[in-house]
Amino acid sequence: MDEFEIIRRYFSTGSVRRSDVALGIGDDAALLTVPAGQELAVTTDSLLSGVHFPADLDAAAVGHRALAANLSDLAAMGAEPTWALLALTLPSADQDWLAAFSRGFFALAKKHHVALVGGNIACGPLNITITAQGLVPTDHALTRKGAAANDLIFVTGHPGDAAAGLRLLQSGRADMEDTCVRRFAYPEPRVEAGAALRGLASACIDISDGLLADLGHILEVSGVGATIMTARLPLSKRLLQLHGMEGGQQLALTGGDDYELLFTAPSERQRAIEERLGKLACPVACIGSIEATPGLRCLEASGHGLKITEPGYKHF
Amino acid sequence: MDEFEIIRRYFSTGSVRRSDVALGIGDDAALLTVPAGQELAVTTDSLLSGVHFPADLDAAAVGHRALAANLSDLAAMGAEPTWALLALTLPSADQDWLAAFSRGFFALAKKHHVALVGGNIACGPLNITITAQGLVPTDHALTRKGAAANDLIFVTGHPGDAAAGLRLLQSGRADMEDTCVRRFAYPEPRVEAGAALRGLASACIDISDGLLADLGHILEVSGVGATIMTARLPLSKRLLQLHGMEGGQQLALTGGDDYELLFTAPSERQRAIEERLGKLACPVACIGSIEATPGLRCLEASGHGLKITEPGYKHF
Repeated sequence: MDEFEIIRRYFSTGSVRRSDVALGIGDDAALLTVPAGQELAVTTDSLLSGVHFPADLDAAAVGHRALAANLSDLAAMGAEPTWALLALTLPSADQDWLAAFSRGFFALAKKHHVALVGGNIACGPLNITITAQGLVPTDHALTRKGAAANDLIFVTGHPGDAAAGLRLLQSGRADMEDTCVRRFAYPEPRVEAGAALRGLASACIDISDGLLADLGHILEVSGVGATIMTARLPLSKRLLQLHGMEGGQQLALTGGDDYELLFTAPSERQRAIEERLGKLACPVACIGSIEATPGLRCLEASGHGLKITEPGYKHF
Repeated sequence: MDEFEIIRRYFSTGSVRRSDVALGIGDDAALLTVPAGQELAVTTDSLLSGVHFPADLDAAAVGHRALAANLSDLAAMGAEPTWALLALTLPSADQDWLAAFSRGFFALAKKHHVALVGGNIACGPLNITITAQGLVPTDHALTRKGAAANDLIFVTGHPGDAAAGLRLLQSGRADMEDTCVRRFAYPEPRVEAGAALRGLASACIDISDGLLADLGHILEVSGVGATIMTARLPLSKRLLQLHGMEGGQQLALTGGDDYELLFTAPSERQRAIEERLGKLACPVACIGSIEATPGLRCLEASGHGLKITEPGYKHF
């Protein structure tokens, strides 16, 4: 089975149709229409076997997760996902793997009405690189810049769950129905929440590298500091059950792999934020505040500073 | 050196600036402006060490070649390249390699006024996946569909040279100044030629997979057949010197790695094509014709059919 047959069999029929795709898979490039008044948001993310997910993770989860990582980046911009390209390098044309991968990929793509418009297939160590594109009204995108002193800091969902799920998977005793395992294997990018935060959030980022590391990016670009109240971290029951309060906080702050949104906003918008995200059934918690003093501080309920060993994943 | 330091040091300063980049590297996604009346052309291509280039190829050539492969796809659509994203997986943060790679990448990007607007860096086996975007006036893109019986078949440049260059590199006795080695290591995508062919070519493709294999895609999508006159293949002197007539023809037809354009057009446009490409100093040769009868035939000067052993590269 050559690459054209792989494309034909696994990647050319599962895609949603969009009227803004003038030409999709099957030519040297796709042709797409961007409406007036919209900016194009574009991001690319690679997932490597053994680095970003355990080598034995279900292929359906790999397909889902690779797309979710990219849609999460678009969500953090407040962009509506539209099109994706998939560059897939895989060691062999394993038909079961390909069928499951494409099922996982297209199920999430369909949910967010994303069309697969191109890609590349090559033989080599497993590497899934997706480029996702989306649209956002001109000048209304959320960025990392814009956090100001006295803004509140919010996070969606339950940070730490994905890292706990990864540890279960690595231990070899994972139940795929476990809440935390699902948060790692099938993360739900906060696409609707990101769009709902346009006009409300002053800065936004996704926390796939770890909450503190990613908050650090906002602080750096915005030129501010912050304090996180660790007691306010919205830890899930399952995370507490697995790791207790202290371990759970560490995973929530530094574990990474959570495709949740971290964002800042002036305090007078807190109610509007909770209302809008509540309508989307998206959990949101206020976990701290932005300060003029540079630096990132974590305060325990006792008022003591928390020692953070490693703010996020390092690739090299 | 972590990935942020790599980005800062090697990838954040070399890029050209474009006024249509509202937000470049450094956020969750880039924000780009597509003008009215233009379609967005987008393509992605991966280059793997040991598959698409010898593992010991100069890093500057790797950077050039990875971008060239993508720009060539845009050229084949008649699109003007605008933005690129780079997903780089590399085994270690080798500073010499990174410096040379980024030099090769940005030199070509600058030449075609392409801005690097995003990317991803991870640790793993060397894999360069680039997504390139470009603009083409709405409804004026060149596609693979549209070749009609009696159209002539043209090719730019000197097919076969890159494959001959690769063989020299693999033999370990390559001179980097050798014409064929340069055509492999530093291919020049036919960007201006592609744009000049808008309104003239009836179908177009780049021949990176091999002339016959890629012509086959045009024939399949257009629902036609073709005859190639092998005596008309524009073989370079260096290719003939290295491989003789028969070997040169085989490499030109099936060798691949040529980032040249293969296109079809009605015969009455031949003069306009030669004039336009002549002004760009882009060599072009008429090598055959499209026929209603399906199938792909190669005729030698004697009128005998040529036996083709393998039409192009197979990844699996």
